[in-house]
Amino acid sequence: MYIGIDLGGTNIKGGIVKASGEIIHKDMIPTNAGREYTEIIKDIAGLISKMLEDTKIDIENIKSIGVGNPGTCDAENGIVIFASNIGFQNVPMREELSKYFSVPIFIENDANCAALGEYSVLEGDIENMVFITLGTGVGGGLIINKKLYTGKNGTAAEVGHMVINTNGNACNCGGRGCWETYASVTALINQTKEYIKENPMSPLAIAGKDGVTGRTAFDLAKKGDEGAKKVVKTWIKYISCGVISIINLLQPEVLMIGGAISKEGDYLINPIIEYQENNTYSQDVEITKIMAARLGNDAGLIGSAFLGKQI
Amino acid sequence: MYIGIDLGGTNIKGGIVKASGEIIHKDMIPTNAGREYTEIIKDIAGLISKMLEDTKIDIENIKSIGVGNPGTCDAENGIVIFASNIGFQNVPMREELSKYFSVPIFIENDANCAALGEYSVLEGDIENMVFITLGTGVGGGLIINKKLYTGKNGTAAEVGHMVINTNGNACNCGGRGCWETYASVTALINQTKEYIKENPMSPLAIAGKDGVTGRTAFDLAKKGDEGAKKVVKTWIKYISCGVISIINLLQPEVLMIGGAISKEGDYLINPIIEYQENNTYSQDVEITKIMAARLGNDAGLIGSAFLGKQI
Repeated sequence: MYIGIDLGGTNIKGGIVKASGEIIHKDMIPTNAGREYTEIIKDIAGLISKMLEDTKIDIENIKSIGVGNPGTCDAENGIVIFASNIGFQNVPMREELSKYFSVPIFIENDANCAALGEYSVLEGDIENMVFITLGTGVGGGLIINKKLYTGKNGTAAEVGHMVINTNGNACNCGGRGCWETYASVTALINQTKEYIKENPMSPLAIAGKDGVTGRTAFDLAKKGDEGAKKVVKTWIKYISCGVISIINLLQPEVLMIGGAISKEGDYLINPIIEYQENNTYSQDVEITKIMAARLGNDAGLIGSAFLGKQI
Repeated sequence: MYIGIDLGGTNIKGGIVKASGEIIHKDMIPTNAGREYTEIIKDIAGLISKMLEDTKIDIENIKSIGVGNPGTCDAENGIVIFASNIGFQNVPMREELSKYFSVPIFIENDANCAALGEYSVLEGDIENMVFITLGTGVGGGLIINKKLYTGKNGTAAEVGHMVINTNGNACNCGGRGCWETYASVTALINQTKEYIKENPMSPLAIAGKDGVTGRTAFDLAKKGDEGAKKVVKTWIKYISCGVISIINLLQPEVLMIGGAISKEGDYLINPIIEYQENNTYSQDVEITKIMAARLGNDAGLIGSAFLGKQI
């Protein structure tokens, strides 16, 4: 068995995971971000101990502990280099957590963990997979030659900062035209609000009068409203442009789209596949399978648990 | 020793290459594209035999033969799937060439070969490198975990068809906004011509009156002409946008820029590095080294020779 920890800005989630990917026990505590890292890691250790106690599993039966962190990691040295929303900078996570447990400890970026989690339960002999998560931003993770690929400096797969418009939207990263300024759920909400501003009497404006979420346009589009369909179509086109860039560069066997919005399923995925068929630069060869992620919030837990298992 | 063949639309180049990367003998014959593949491969065999005769090297001393092809390859099965400018479709290159020589034979796409060639002579312990070649189009090759990465279907690294403008220039591939429609030398020539059209009395117009090449704007920009500097600056910005996308996705240790225009050296590379410093999404970690390619036309020869050697 493996233990996975998903360290987030709000909560710390923990899970005990079997080699099959089955989560046999889960628990959660608040992060209380902003505290000294020693305090937060002490709480992680407490969460792990509690999970072991509650399940009566002996630490001897745990092969490794993995921690997914919301930032840049030096996996080799077990250091969280930078994670702004929990205030971590050069935090020696492995060293600190080793004070509590003598099993191997692995750390990694949380989106990379989610990629590994989704990959681990994928059917078939897949060598290369790209995982994209659409949320506040656009994140991702790469599996290359059946292993997590993070680049030598650990910061690869920042797919949200691929440029899809040279002189486009300003991005938090300081650049312009980054994919996430068009294809994140935040961007969808902005695009919905813009449409509402331009069409204040439209059904979409009425649907969004108490607040616009990532679902507002999708829900109405499914009911056939033309304005909402247009908003959704434009957003999916932005997603598709980045997807095409990734496919033309890496030609993975699978490109998986995650984040809460991926629950839209075929309604989201099918138009991207259609765009792929018309725009990918590959002839007479098998093309990338685009699909929705399947594990939801558990992907990060399973992936962090499996850092020590990597297939 | 290894034999490399660079099969192009105009010429077939051959070389005998030492394990160090030194080319000890080179020769060349016309492709006469459009002929039956059996005829072209017979000529490749003849070129190889002639090189061996001229150097008095016995085929026993050749560890492998590699062929770089201008198109999509199925390296595993030794088949050129599609190469439009030599009229190849599903050509069993390995099988056919095996009729002449009993050494191991490898085939690959030519830009991938160039990437492998440049990588093979790189100093240091580099795990990941992206090679980009700016020419008629924009091609490339990826080295990941010290090996050529071509995706399961063999068509990865089509970097020229990454999208840098969602509703941008129409591309030959059928898509819109592909990087190569902005960052190829063809694009630079078009951008130079556009400037000349808008500024018919400008020094750049005078410089280009007998024809515009990829060097026209560069040559005049170096002399300080503001118009030419503007054209070059805009073109380099387009290059930089794609470079940033690749870096944010893969974070390779080295990103190498090839093609004849890379002879411009620092004048081309330094502004890209400057753009990288301001736009790459990575903090507190070692960043990608951007550099000009060094082998010129020999990259493809060395890389094809080394297909059987892959470090």
